Amino acid sequence: MPEINKQITLAARPKGLPKESDFKLVESPVPAPKAGEILVRVLYLSVDPYMRGRMNDVKSYAPPVQIGEVMGGGAVGKVVASQNPQFQVGYIVEGYFGWQEYAISNGTGVRKIDPAVAPISTALGVLGMPGLTAYFGLLEIGKLRQGETVVVSSAAGAVGSIAGQIARIKGCRVVGIAGSDQKVAWLRDELGFDAAFNYKAAEDYSSKLQELCPNGIDVYFDNVGGAITDAVFPLINTGARIVVCGQIAQYNAEKPETGPRLLWQLIVKQARAEGFLVFQFAPRYAEGLKQMVEWLSAGKLKYREQSTEGIESAPRAFIGMLQGENTGKQLVRVARE
Amino acid sequence: MPEINKQITLAARPKGLPKESDFKLVESPVPAPKAGEILVRVLYLSVDPYMRGRMNDVKSYAPPVQIGEVMGGGAVGKVVASQNPQFQVGYIVEGYFGWQEYAISNGTGVRKIDPAVAPISTALGVLGMPGLTAYFGLLEIGKLRQGETVVVSSAAGAVGSIAGQIARIKGCRVVGIAGSDQKVAWLRDELGFDAAFNYKAAEDYSSKLQELCPNGIDVYFDNVGGAITDAVFPLINTGARIVVCGQIAQYNAEKPETGPRLLWQLIVKQARAEGFLVFQFAPRYAEGLKQMVEWLSAGKLKYREQSTEGIESAPRAFIGMLQGENTGKQLVRVARE
Repeated sequence: MPEINKQITLAARPKGLPKESDFKLVESPVPAPKAGEILVRVLYLSVDPYMRGRMNDVKSYAPPVQIGEVMGGGAVGKVVASQNPQFQVGYIVEGYFGWQEYAISNGTGVRKIDPAVAPISTALGVLGMPGLTAYFGLLEIGKLRQGETVVVSSAAGAVGSIAGQIARIKGCRVVGIAGSDQKVAWLRDELGFDAAFNYKAAEDYSSKLQELCPNGIDVYFDNVGGAITDAVFPLINTGARIVVCGQIAQYNAEKPETGPRLLWQLIVKQARAEGFLVFQFAPRYAEGLKQMVEWLSAGKLKYREQSTEGIESAPRAFIGMLQGENTGKQLVRVARE
Repeated sequence: MPEINKQITLAARPKGLPKESDFKLVESPVPAPKAGEILVRVLYLSVDPYMRGRMNDVKSYAPPVQIGEVMGGGAVGKVVASQNPQFQVGYIVEGYFGWQEYAISNGTGVRKIDPAVAPISTALGVLGMPGLTAYFGLLEIGKLRQGETVVVSSAAGAVGSIAGQIARIKGCRVVGIAGSDQKVAWLRDELGFDAAFNYKAAEDYSSKLQELCPNGIDVYFDNVGGAITDAVFPLINTGARIVVCGQIAQYNAEKPETGPRLLWQLIVKQARAEGFLVFQFAPRYAEGLKQMVEWLSAGKLKYREQSTEGIESAPRAFIGMLQGENTGKQLVRVARE
């Protein structure tokens, strides 16, 4: 076993879009697990929009990463040493292992992954946090009903691409908003979205949305905020639900952004905007995963993953994801099994 | 019976705050009811913030008032002629009779008022649309729970003053925001609010709210929007509910206002902002009124009304209400019984 653990720490708090120099590659000895602990060899690391918030020195639902601290993040790995009877050497596990090659864990929040069900990387995507975010966000926050029109922003992302497909499975008309013609083609031709458009090529989001949503918008699954959301609000139907999942358009803002005041539209339309964090549904993860596995097995749900290679590439993968370079789930392949 | 019906029509679409010249007093013959109709002598007319929206030529949940058309509005009156067996001459009734001395109605949406229960003017206030708005907004949209902290904006208004008292009845800590020291004193000393402040005298809404809400804000009953709402959002607790009842700060805006983007706060706090219109609860009005009458009889609920005299004074009453001149419910006393 190698003795060196490569880790990515936070070197500086980013201003605006993070730069690679905001991160630092450090090396430390591979630690040995103490009683009750396991040592995990990380195989796949997830990069997700929420990590941008953790890089700011702002109190939120989770504490910020400190300067010099290893970046946090969900990962899939293999147990290579164990002092915990619940996790045997050789188990594939998913947990919050961070941006590093080896991680020590006491097993809290770690789940065993069955490689027979699906490729193990899916535990960070369609069968992990992004998939569960789409599932509970759409069904529990969005209270989706058959026949409704659903708009998904960042629709080709890890969460949006699953949310849109679940809405299709539930018998809704689904319109996706994405950032390239290739993504739009993927949504329409492979994932079965009823319509989609490339916001970077659209002159006027509002008229495009009106064209694609002739019956208005019943559910808006919002991953982005900003000008796209501003265009959606006036088009919502009476009783609409706005699922506020992410606001990535603002995560790199250097000062608080302003925009049109939107709340009055909620009155006129007797509508609701609700934010959520997937972990509020933790007691129901098993139910969600069971349903997602069924849909995957039945071919009703498709997913795409893309990876960069090596822990050194994590900052690049993360920055690229923030800029919308990925289609589907962006991963870092830290090691091959 | 007089033969002349004085009416107030819309003379011009207001720019910003309405002026008296945006209205016109006209006279027409008192009409006679046809088969199925009643003629109502209006006694009290209600002026309400929503009327400002109807003066704009904008499609909303209700059509706009047309130039030259009699202004719409809820009123209480006496049936003085009837061709409808459901409404006898002498009945006191409440309905959407408009800004005029006499109104013809076919009885749709008209309810009989029992003068033995409470002064008949309350059918436009605590036992009418404003009271029901407070009741259903707080309990059904706000999902109020005992022990929570509730902030009410426009707290000395017709809706806010009732909403705050209901929150007290339900065992919550209630903080009111109002526009004068007299209103603040009324909220604290007579209505039993736990705390209140005069926003016109506050240098910094945020620090004032933090001082008065040391445990954060669980429910925000929002009648105003704008800068007050901007200050509330960062202080909401996890799972908070924002009851979007009115946004009077924007009703006179000549162009769409901008403000800080607020939706991301809903994610971080797993919170909800929901707009509503009281008529969505129409099937449950009887239940709400029964409860309000009980609270009134038990002395748990207090109200204040103020009136201007004569239909000619309606524009002035309305404009004053938009400027926050009223404490409690603003009425126009069109005639004495």
